[in-house]
Amino acid sequence: MLTITNLTKYYKKNVAVNHFDVDIKKGHIYGFIGPNGAGKTTFFKMLAGLAIPSEGEIMVSTGEKFEKYKMKMSFMIEAPYLYEKMTAFENMKIIGGIKGESDDSVLLDYLKIVKLDQTGKKKVKDFSLGMKQRLGIACALVGNPEIIVLDEPMNGVDPEGIVILREILLSLVEKRNVTLMISSHILSELYNLSTDFIFIRNGNIVKKMTKDALDRLTSGVIEIGTDDVGVFDFLVQQYGVDNVTQKESYIYLTQDKKNPTEISKELIEKGFTFTGIREQSVELETYYMREIVGGSHE
Amino acid sequence: MLTITNLTKYYKKNVAVNHFDVDIKKGHIYGFIGPNGAGKTTFFKMLAGLAIPSEGEIMVSTGEKFEKYKMKMSFMIEAPYLYEKMTAFENMKIIGGIKGESDDSVLLDYLKIVKLDQTGKKKVKDFSLGMKQRLGIACALVGNPEIIVLDEPMNGVDPEGIVILREILLSLVEKRNVTLMISSHILSELYNLSTDFIFIRNGNIVKKMTKDALDRLTSGVIEIGTDDVGVFDFLVQQYGVDNVTQKESYIYLTQDKKNPTEISKELIEKGFTFTGIREQSVELETYYMREIVGGSHE
Repeated sequence: MLTITNLTKYYKKNVAVNHFDVDIKKGHIYGFIGPNGAGKTTFFKMLAGLAIPSEGEIMVSTGEKFEKYKMKMSFMIEAPYLYEKMTAFENMKIIGGIKGESDDSVLLDYLKIVKLDQTGKKKVKDFSLGMKQRLGIACALVGNPEIIVLDEPMNGVDPEGIVILREILLSLVEKRNVTLMISSHILSELYNLSTDFIFIRNGNIVKKMTKDALDRLTSGVIEIGTDDVGVFDFLVQQYGVDNVTQKESYIYLTQDKKNPTEISKELIEKGFTFTGIREQSVELETYYMREIVGGSHE
Repeated sequence: MLTITNLTKYYKKNVAVNHFDVDIKKGHIYGFIGPNGAGKTTFFKMLAGLAIPSEGEIMVSTGEKFEKYKMKMSFMIEAPYLYEKMTAFENMKIIGGIKGESDDSVLLDYLKIVKLDQTGKKKVKDFSLGMKQRLGIACALVGNPEIIVLDEPMNGVDPEGIVILREILLSLVEKRNVTLMISSHILSELYNLSTDFIFIRNGNIVKKMTKDALDRLTSGVIEIGTDDVGVFDFLVQQYGVDNVTQKESYIYLTQDKKNPTEISKELIEKGFTFTGIREQSVELETYYMREIVGGSHE
């Protein structure tokens, strides 16, 4: 849908966004990961027209000019901009006026998607943070955008709010084929949502990969849950002391010859019991800390 | 260490904290879970002396008066209070002055614990949010507190910051036998940290339980990862169609007669392969949404 090439933003001598190349494909969910100040928000602001790029270009696959295509995108950067003294529906009417959507039932449908159609006369100032974020998303839906950009939408939202927000975002992609670009510090949450990851540090994109590619980077470790004391010694004897470690009720076996079925079979034949056995995949956080941060903490 | 009984706070006619009973034991980590506005912060503020209880009492196990014992507690409620134009060490000196700790090497040790001993002349205003939270924790360590209360310490902190903060908190408990009371909306994180959970809604404690008790509430579901198409039909035939569900490459089997070892054995005997098999525990979020929130979303 979009091909972003060389997008760059200097502030005086400092480069906030350094030659970003990103392809945005329909129906994907892009998770942007990086420390505070890495350049994510500046990048989003350039897409929104809230910051002017120093260099670079954005091509639209349809051939349209990006300035025109931008009307088909919505943005929620930092906090959503809402009228606190108005109701959810009154806020929607204002956005509807701006974006040319005058059909009340359409606006009400958007509120239904974010589960705010029953808030009646309640004013936005009495909404929870999660409700405000959802109203921000309802506003973002007006005009049927093809791409929605959300900067830290989960920040400060409480646990119920997070669950509802996650459901809403996934259903937007599934039912409306919307494309999402999301930044979040909550890596477990971003992992659940995203189809693609973009890692940013110090103004640079340091890595891009699909979720499938990340999942393939499993470390070849088999995790065996067991309270059977003989298992550890048996595995050491079979696979060598360097390939077996234990942490509480879990034993980790590093080898690449046998799959969990074969390991299970060996254990069962020896009469051992286990509570679980599986190939362990690298968690996004572990991957991020090991490969992207690489040990340097500041 | 503390026995909190009937602790209550009314604001005009509204009850913000309704008869809280909580026992605080040495070396435990209490995770407080609930929506925004549930009463967590008001509860913490009463402990800190920032809000005056309407009713209730706090007994100290040593027999000391709580007003005196409170000197052995530290609090970080909402944002840490820091002098932005000073360095980390200058901030520590000020707190040291207040709490009667004049030994620079002790103050430096606290900075070392939170990994801020190398920040030199850098002023707090140039710190990341995660660094500020850590400095808040270093300040909280001055005077060797027995209990540290942290309200949403992970909020807005970036992924590296979260990893470092988690390590610091766990090592405080392990190496210094500190007791922690922490609220967080990031349930996966709170699950990693806590030994005990306290669920709060609408000013009430609706449930308290240890992590072990939560873990025992596993739902008796066995998760089998497999790409072998015959496994699903085999399990349906053995255990009935109502007890077997499938989601992508995972099959979930509900039954309470056989353990994973026995199920593995059955699969292996039939020549099936699997990528993993384990008893699945209920995630904290799933438990919270099902048992505490119970379907009502607002």
